Amino acid sequence: MTAHCPNPDKFFPVVKTPALQNGALKGKIALVTGGGTGLGRSIATTFARLGASVAIAARRLDVLQKAAEEIRKETNGVCEAFQMDIRKPEMISQAVDQIESKLGLPNIVVNNAAGNFIAATERLSPNAFSAIVDIVLKGTFFVTQEVGRRCIEQNKGCTVLSITATYSRAGAPFVVPSATAKAGVEVMMKSLSAEWTRYGFRFNVIAPGPIYTPGAFNRLMPGMTLDQAMELGKQGVAAGRFGEREELANLAAYMCSDYSSWMNGTTIDFDGGQTSLRQKSDFGSFLYEMDKQAWENIENIIKTSTGKANKSRL
Amino acid sequence: MTAHCPNPDKFFPVVKTPALQNGALKGKIALVTGGGTGLGRSIATTFARLGASVAIAARRLDVLQKAAEEIRKETNGVCEAFQMDIRKPEMISQAVDQIESKLGLPNIVVNNAAGNFIAATERLSPNAFSAIVDIVLKGTFFVTQEVGRRCIEQNKGCTVLSITATYSRAGAPFVVPSATAKAGVEVMMKSLSAEWTRYGFRFNVIAPGPIYTPGAFNRLMPGMTLDQAMELGKQGVAAGRFGEREELANLAAYMCSDYSSWMNGTTIDFDGGQTSLRQKSDFGSFLYEMDKQAWENIENIIKTSTGKANKSRL
Amino acid sequence: MTAHCPNPDKFFPVVKTPALQNGALKGKIALVTGGGTGLGRSIATTFARLGASVAIAARRLDVLQKAAEEIRKETNGVCEAFQMDIRKPEMISQAVDQIESKLGLPNIVVNNAAGNFIAATERLSPNAFSAIVDIVLKGTFFVTQEVGRRCIEQNKGCTVLSITATYSRAGAPFVVPSATAKAGVEVMMKSLSAEWTRYGFRFNVIAPGPIYTPGAFNRLMPGMTLDQAMELGKQGVAAGRFGEREELANLAAYMCSDYSSWMNGTTIDFDGGQTSLRQKSDFGSFLYEMDKQAWENIENIIKTSTGKANKSRL
Amino acid sequence: MTAHCPNPDKFFPVVKTPALQNGALKGKIALVTGGGTGLGRSIATTFARLGASVAIAARRLDVLQKAAEEIRKETNGVCEAFQMDIRKPEMISQAVDQIESKLGLPNIVVNNAAGNFIAATERLSPNAFSAIVDIVLKGTFFVTQEVGRRCIEQNKGCTVLSITATYSRAGAPFVVPSATAKAGVEVMMKSLSAEWTRYGFRFNVIAPGPIYTPGAFNRLMPGMTLDQAMELGKQGVAAGRFGEREELANLAAYMCSDYSSWMNGTTIDFDGGQTSLRQKSDFGSFLYEMDKQAWENIENIIKTSTGKANKSRL
Ligand SMILES: NC(=O)c1ccc[n+]([C@@H]2O[C@H](COP(=O)([O-])OP(=O)(O)OC[C@H]3O[C@@H](n4cnc5c(N)ncnc54)[C@H](OP(=O)(O)O)[C@@H]3O)[C@@H](O)[C@H]2O)c1
Ligand SMILES: NC(=O)c1ccc[n+]([C@@H]2O[C@H](COP(=O)([O-])OP(=O)(O)OC[C@H]3O[C@@H](n4cnc5c(N)ncnc54)[C@H](OP(=O)(O)O)[C@@H]3O)[C@@H](O)[C@H]2O)c1
Ligand SMILES: NC(=O)c1ccc[n+]([C@@H]2O[C@H](COP(=O)([O-])OP(=O)(O)OC[C@H]3O[C@@H](n4cnc5c(N)ncnc54)[C@H](OP(=O)(O)O)[C@@H]3O)[C@@H](O)[C@H]2O)c1
Ligand SMILES: NC(=O)c1ccc[n+]([C@@H]2O[C@H](COP(=O)([O-])OP(=O)(O)OC[C@H]3O[C@@H](n4cnc5c(N)ncnc54)[C@H](OP(=O)(O)O)[C@@H]3O)[C@@H](O)[C@H]2O)c1
Repeated sequence: MTAHCPNPDKFFPVVKTPALQNGALKGKIALVTGGGTGLGRSIATTFARLGASVAIAARRLDVLQKAAEEIRKETNGVCEAFQMDIRKPEMISQAVDQIESKLGLPNIVVNNAAGNFIAATERLSPNAFSAIVDIVLKGTFFVTQEVGRRCIEQNKGCTVLSITATYSRAGAPFVVPSATAKAGVEVMMKSLSAEWTRYGFRFNVIAPGPIYTPGAFNRLMPGMTLDQAMELGKQGVAAGRFGEREELANLAAYMCSDYSSWMNGTTIDFDGGQTSLRQKSDFGSFLYEMDKQAWENIENIIKTSTGKANKSRL
Repeated sequence: MTAHCPNPDKFFPVVKTPALQNGALKGKIALVTGGGTGLGRSIATTFARLGASVAIAARRLDVLQKAAEEIRKETNGVCEAFQMDIRKPEMISQAVDQIESKLGLPNIVVNNAAGNFIAATERLSPNAFSAIVDIVLKGTFFVTQEVGRRCIEQNKGCTVLSITATYSRAGAPFVVPSATAKAGVEVMMKSLSAEWTRYGFRFNVIAPGPIYTPGAFNRLMPGMTLDQAMELGKQGVAAGRFGEREELANLAAYMCSDYSSWMNGTTIDFDGGQTSLRQKSDFGSFLYEMDKQAWENIENIIKTSTGKANKSRL
Repeated sequence: MTAHCPNPDKFFPVVKTPALQNGALKGKIALVTGGGTGLGRSIATTFARLGASVAIAARRLDVLQKAAEEIRKETNGVCEAFQMDIRKPEMISQAVDQIESKLGLPNIVVNNAAGNFIAATERLSPNAFSAIVDIVLKGTFFVTQEVGRRCIEQNKGCTVLSITATYSRAGAPFVVPSATAKAGVEVMMKSLSAEWTRYGFRFNVIAPGPIYTPGAFNRLMPGMTLDQAMELGKQGVAAGRFGEREELANLAAYMCSDYSSWMNGTTIDFDGGQTSLRQKSDFGSFLYEMDKQAWENIENIIKTSTGKANKSRL
Repeated sequence: MTAHCPNPDKFFPVVKTPALQNGALKGKIALVTGGGTGLGRSIATTFARLGASVAIAARRLDVLQKAAEEIRKETNGVCEAFQMDIRKPEMISQAVDQIESKLGLPNIVVNNAAGNFIAATERLSPNAFSAIVDIVLKGTFFVTQEVGRRCIEQNKGCTVLSITATYSRAGAPFVVPSATAKAGVEVMMKSLSAEWTRYGFRFNVIAPGPIYTPGAFNRLMPGMTLDQAMELGKQGVAAGRFGEREELANLAAYMCSDYSSWMNGTTIDFDGGQTSLRQKSDFGSFLYEMDKQAWENIENIIKTSTGKANKSRL
């Protein structure tokens, strides 16, 4: 038998409809960076559907505007597009001005925008390394601080949710800039939780495993078809399947709603057991393939080789 | 200003109504150990309200039966009481027999039963240490394995959720048996996630911070009034308040529902920022009390003492 | 190219001679549980060589006595054997009485004794699970507390070092009892570090990766020859080789010496990068096999598929 | 009684002489960034004394040259000064050229250079945040990659040791840029351990607690006398004292020597139990002050309030 689940459809069904009660995010004003594509767009959609006023922000205004319009149609909710390069503090400030006047000051910030690509670390140029750190780590800080400062001044609370990755704590080869920067983001959130919660803030993190989006897969599994990437990737995920955007959006909605107002400083791995499965190789992954007979053989070998002393131990 | 939030009512409102859509747990059969009191009872109530058939199990049958009846009344749902000392494998087996015939084989197990008390470690008897380990660590294993084995045999999946504590990873003084045993439970869940997910299982953990229940507080803050305990305790929680049982029950419901079917091998800290606030003392907690003027002074001191070199660095 | 190092002899030479200055453990009285075999015996040997008076203790007195005699010969140092089943508090107490009168009260305790074996978790009997927990977790507590209590009473400090395993935090399949119990030990050490350091104690942990000992390998890689086990196992270790007992003993000696008197509450992974290599599968382990040409291809694919937008990002 | 040790002189003696055997680093060529002051200088001194050829590098050449000269005198060893701003890749490249021609290509790199200062996060300018990230995170990467690339090309191994801080995983308020950047460094090391160990590299981290150096204390405890800072700070350290530079240098020497050639991907907290003591506040720090009588009272209260049920549990 395999190490991952061969039958995810049966055991781990995908539910794409909203988990939370209708109107769960009413009164919320949410800024979602990178909200025009991929996971960010799904988060924005779910938030709008649950009653939040949503600002999506990224570099490509056309992409954002199209997305905002479609989200409004799909959800009957409020969603507006704003141009913002999160590497540029002044541009962030201007965009937040606009958001504030159009929708109000955000009381939810989802730090979702990021860059990433596969590379052998010795081949990276200094600029390539910096590019990722500047978006992921500095950009996340600049956005958080800009909105945060205004919230503190106006004595309003704010819930900050950052999207990192499963490899943000244990590290990963071939994505060193991203792993490095995402690790920084996770600890930034914890640090701010210790410093700013007294001002009415919450800071939490979702660390997702593989969820198909065109953006992520083009850069991380280049040159493969989707099917190939899925086939290869799912073997590393205990659940035997990738995640779906709506599943992550449901978790994000819960974490930004008042239902979780006591959740603070937390990182949630959301990865179908990818992280736990990594342990598989400790004593040989062939152990997953053993049947009843094979186990009985091993049990006998242990009994024989360790003798009586072992007997009493077991 | 304080390190914790002085105004939790404004910023971190308590929402006690169910977070999930009605019927979110329909078709689920949930076993909640320690479900007759405290957090376990709240979890059972929320689960029953969301459509699950709930079995609550612990040692005191009278307490359980009274609770089950009240839960049925309150929720119009299904809840039954079963006597089970989780330290005793045969008793577990018999109770699961009964559950299976009355409600069906559980596809949700909430390992919530536990024991704990405050003590100076050098004063513990070997029996006192064993007592906690036997309930928390062995008991959790025995219940998980008994239900798990049946699920594997019947080719049914199961979602296991264990309740640990915020101190399960970093440790804590004066509750050494509990910290030790809860740490074991967390890693047991991760290990099983690596081994049994292929059979359709999920294993997750909630590590809660302080939530008032008579059981926990009598043993952990003995000799204090509730007000004293709350006053003392909330200063260690960034959010400035304790959690409420219904908040935890909402998180548990999400984690046991199909909305989170891709969540696996995860531990969620749910503690109002208690863990993140622990970092406060690094450079003196007086830093939380500084006003604008004080910060300007410090900034000047740094500038002066480090001179030009520092200038260019900042 | 492989993910692990193909040339460990060149890059990661094994040094078996003592790392510390001669006499580094003079004046120390060390109790090493399980000190008659495997890693424990190597630790005892290195400690005796560095000037400590060493008590080795386990269940099989004959094994211990033979080991003690050989250690004395080999090192010209002090080493005595004591029978002690660490599951039995009274027996521990008697053995520590004897140690105290023969060598003095230990100011170093190395919790090294353990049991472990490979098994599919659904096949474990409750007794098999308990057997491991009783040795590893309860036994470690009983020994630590017995010596600790005496040290507190006599106002003497003590350094406690526990040996766990790399899988003690992330978990591992097929060794659930051990993973569970070792996790408990790690957090027990941290908790006691918070509680007893004020009495002059230190508590630290070494979490080793695979190091050949007959005890461990018979139970964990049963039915394989040593060569097969090594060949299989080293692929999971970044360094491309297993550890050697003397390397671990050198680390243990440092951690129990006064050179590290400020180290406290720490867990040191010692595993040739086994833990870090586990990450390898994130985006496909084929990435390790790519040559220059293959990387250039991938870089071009990324460039093409993401176009200008990516350009500016990188 | 206090939570920290009131008597560190008795229990946790400071040993400043080298721990390792003479000549333990013979044949090693070590680059220590920030090696002209503070911890870096101590590391350089110990390394030179143990036989390594040491290159110290930082921005201020005069400081470095004076230090190098003094180190040579003190140790009779090899130590040379090189100007290097680790934020500037070309400057790093030139400096490594010089090191290579003067001493040889480094086979040890100690990433020790850093910047840090106390600040309320909402008061930071974008430049202030960037300044720290650029030194700590980018600088560490640039140095590691520059030396690493050459080692790969020349098929030589290299041991990389980075100095972070105790707050690099759990975060800390008022030092958000540093906590963020140091977290990135830790995960960078783990990631590279997974990717480059096969080329003969090792990557490890020391995360120190408070050790007096003029550099750190002027920026982190500004406006206090050393005595005030020590008095305040040591209460947060279980051992009841700060660390000393030579203690850290001894640990660094071990980790860069061949004695630890199997240590890889590891982070070692070296903090006198500062991290473990942070747990103290869970149930009130008054617990540390209780005497025998007070504990007996509490034990009675627990017994009374929980009655028989508790009895059987204990
Ligand atoms: N999909 C996965 O499997 C997966 C797994 C783990 C983590 N994640 C994380 O999930 C998040 C979303 O990823 P995704 O998969 O949805 O990929 P994606 O569609 O490529 O999303 C990235 C978004 O970030 C925006 N962005 C990039 N640079 C920006 C900048 N300088 N300023 C503002 N916005 C910028 C992009 O928009 P513009 O180009 O228009 O600026 C884009 O909308 C990322 O944080 C990613 O690391 C994804
Ligand atoms: N409340 C908090 O602040 C807090 C914080 C962190 C973690 N937790 C965790 O939350 C869980 C619930 O705690 P709580 O606060 O709700 O306390 P509680 O009301 O005392 O709950 C403990 C439950 O466990 C049951 N139990 C104890 N020993 C048992 C045994 N041998 N077999 C079967 N059931 C047994 C008890 O019922 P019987 O006595 O009838 O058997 C009781 O219902 C525990 O795991 C606790 O560690 C609570
Ligand atoms: N070797 C590895 O690769 C590896 C890896 C990770 C961790 N470890 C850990 O390293 C430690 C030593 O293992 P090893 O490889 O050296 O195996 P080992 O030779 O089998 O050592 C185990 C020792 O524990 C003693 N022991 C077992 N039960 C005991 C009891 N109830 N009371 C007293 N002593 C008892 C045994 O002696 P008696 O039978 O005479 O009592 C034996 O000397 C263990 O903690 C193990 O988990 C080893
Ligand atoms: N002391 C502690 O308690 C403590 C605790 C935790 C961690 N640490 C860490 O230990 C390390 C050493 O700190 P320390 O206490 O010894 O302080 P320090 O004396 O101020 O050392 C910092 C060194 O970094 C160098 N540096 C700064 N920016 C640089 C740049 N751009 N390029 C090259 N070199 C640069 C400085 O030299 P120039 O100014 O000449 O460039 C200086 O020699 C740091 O990583 C620090 O974070 C210290």
